[in-house]
Amino acid sequence: MISKKMQELVAGSSVIRAMFEEGKLMAQKYGAENVFDFSLGNPNTAPPNTLIEDICDILKNNQSIHGYMNNSGYEQTRETIAQSINCKDGLNLNFKNVCMCVGAAGGLNIILKTILNPLDEVIVFAPFFSEYKNYVDNFDGHLKIIPANPPSFMPDLKAFESAINKNTKAIIINTPNNPTGVVYDDDTLAGLAHILNRKQQEFSQDIYLISDEPYREIVYDNIKVPSILKFYDNSFIAYSYSKSLSLPGERIGYVVANSAMKDLDEIMSALNVANRILGFVNAPSLFQKVVERYVDAPVNLDLYKSNRDILYKHLVSLGFEINNPDGAFYLFPKSLISDDVAFCNEAKKFNLLLVPGSAFGCKGYFRIAYCVSPSTVINSLSSFTNLVAHFK
Amino acid sequence: MISKKMQELVAGSSVIRAMFEEGKLMAQKYGAENVFDFSLGNPNTAPPNTLIEDICDILKNNQSIHGYMNNSGYEQTRETIAQSINCKDGLNLNFKNVCMCVGAAGGLNIILKTILNPLDEVIVFAPFFSEYKNYVDNFDGHLKIIPANPPSFMPDLKAFESAINKNTKAIIINTPNNPTGVVYDDDTLAGLAHILNRKQQEFSQDIYLISDEPYREIVYDNIKVPSILKFYDNSFIAYSYSKSLSLPGERIGYVVANSAMKDLDEIMSALNVANRILGFVNAPSLFQKVVERYVDAPVNLDLYKSNRDILYKHLVSLGFEINNPDGAFYLFPKSLISDDVAFCNEAKKFNLLLVPGSAFGCKGYFRIAYCVSPSTVINSLSSFTNLVAHFK
Repeated sequence: MISKKMQELVAGSSVIRAMFEEGKLMAQKYGAENVFDFSLGNPNTAPPNTLIEDICDILKNNQSIHGYMNNSGYEQTRETIAQSINCKDGLNLNFKNVCMCVGAAGGLNIILKTILNPLDEVIVFAPFFSEYKNYVDNFDGHLKIIPANPPSFMPDLKAFESAINKNTKAIIINTPNNPTGVVYDDDTLAGLAHILNRKQQEFSQDIYLISDEPYREIVYDNIKVPSILKFYDNSFIAYSYSKSLSLPGERIGYVVANSAMKDLDEIMSALNVANRILGFVNAPSLFQKVVERYVDAPVNLDLYKSNRDILYKHLVSLGFEINNPDGAFYLFPKSLISDDVAFCNEAKKFNLLLVPGSAFGCKGYFRIAYCVSPSTVINSLSSFTNLVAHFK
Repeated sequence: MISKKMQELVAGSSVIRAMFEEGKLMAQKYGAENVFDFSLGNPNTAPPNTLIEDICDILKNNQSIHGYMNNSGYEQTRETIAQSINCKDGLNLNFKNVCMCVGAAGGLNIILKTILNPLDEVIVFAPFFSEYKNYVDNFDGHLKIIPANPPSFMPDLKAFESAINKNTKAIIINTPNNPTGVVYDDDTLAGLAHILNRKQQEFSQDIYLISDEPYREIVYDNIKVPSILKFYDNSFIAYSYSKSLSLPGERIGYVVANSAMKDLDEIMSALNVANRILGFVNAPSLFQKVVERYVDAPVNLDLYKSNRDILYKHLVSLGFEINNPDGAFYLFPKSLISDDVAFCNEAKKFNLLLVPGSAFGCKGYFRIAYCVSPSTVINSLSSFTNLVAHFK
């Protein structure tokens, strides 16, 4: 008999993951080339083509590469990452600001373990990656959701300000955003920081800004993602190499804490302990050494940009209400009927696997993960056309 | 400001890990060859010498090896592991019984997330791996400790029986045992199962037997570790390749649930969801493919056996009360004074890094992790001699 919490969780198990499994079954039934699976953020771009060579080189030149290290990771890896961020964002970090972790999911969990007391509130802006609710619940926190702010999907700062109270411990933002592709600009981050600073003072307590940034490098048209570390002292970044290096299965990422964070040493010690006692122990050792070589590697955006442009243009021509995303690899159009779940179920009849917006706390929309092959995009276009015709 | 729970955890942070860090500092000060660091279970035996070749081969022959897969892991890896266990233990498992996980630490956490409701009790026998307390506490469970049963350190079945009550949800055993090296024999497992079956009936509820088995293959003198799956229906094994393949930094292991377990399908679904929502997501993908090739690889025990024999003989000659361990790579002698922490502090004066038994819930003893180089063992012998002289 599984625990009460798990009964609910298993029953409401991830819509996205369920679709991933359904997609595999449909591919068996109809042939993979006839199923247009836009359900999962599994990068289709190949990892860097020097990766195999580098891994083999690391293995041949590093004795005891597979052993334990400090729970926060190899110092050299952490220092390399810190210096890379310093160069890009004009900051002053060193290895002590960095804790290597098991992907951004692992990173968010060690941050939340570090800061949350039971019943503490964590604020997110809809639409949001649905796992945040589970991560916060792992530590008996409460997720407070600010309603979506279409059509821009930028954070509603007024609603944010009035949502903060004495129980607010943190806010999680995700920029570039899954599922909207929105990138928070300087003004937005400054606005968030301004409110947070005022509220910290009002309630005489620390409120942490956590930025989940697995899509940091996945941006188009020369957009740059501003660093929250420049805007707000009590800020963390959770980063993953899943998307930039196309290594989602390897579970490698890091957490950075701002040098100006209050009680920084204690926070870093707690992240280290959290890594250990949550059972991660440390980020996988070989891939720590791998990412050390790729901190400044250019990210190949060609496929994603081309997919985005083709899909966006086609969907606009079909009359969808939709933003052209600045980053990530998702489109988030308005559903043709208010019931987004029913809409996505209908889409399956056209072999289109789409994720309802309600999975992200935002009804009436749906997500297209366009990190797929160009042929999937091209071949799917007529299905989208037929889907629209079906609703006319 | 870190959470209240974390304040305690950081303050009382792992004695073993602290020693690991202290050892590195001492090595810098006195030279690595003059410090005898017996504090951490970091295997000194090299990984299999074909490992590099195999990793490079896997990388060259598997497209999308680094992608997401089902949260429970690659089916082929899971099936290979199931069939290997079937061969060795005459069982009837398949891939559905297996969930790949981030080391045994990750495995224990997903099991406990799956079964524990707040205030449920989990029983362990002292001495025990101190992380169990933290793992159980992650899910608001309560650890109930059965006092140590020296000199054999086999479980005290009478004390066990009277410790079980209506709140008992699980028992964690660890065989071969860290820190005693004891292997639970058929009679012991049958005894545990008999009591558990009776108590399940008495309290009309499931009680799970969880066996933490990272040292399963580290056994000497033709000892075989019996499988708990043959003795008790509601049983899990948490396994790690950290010790058998010397890959502790890579975080690769699995959980097996007994085919006869009640609600098996629901349990396996919950393990899958727990892997996801605790932030592990999946076991590292490349190393899933690596261990698939090594399920039946012989484990090189020569170094450990030789270290054990040399240290055991020397310590006996010095008058230590000590068992010759059947498995794992630890010796657990009686301390020369009742205060084991003071004893280990004195040992540092002789450059011996030993872990007090109280770190395992067993005062008056200390642990020697002999998974070190032969020269460390040989060169340490005079330090042990001097340590004993110091206390005479």
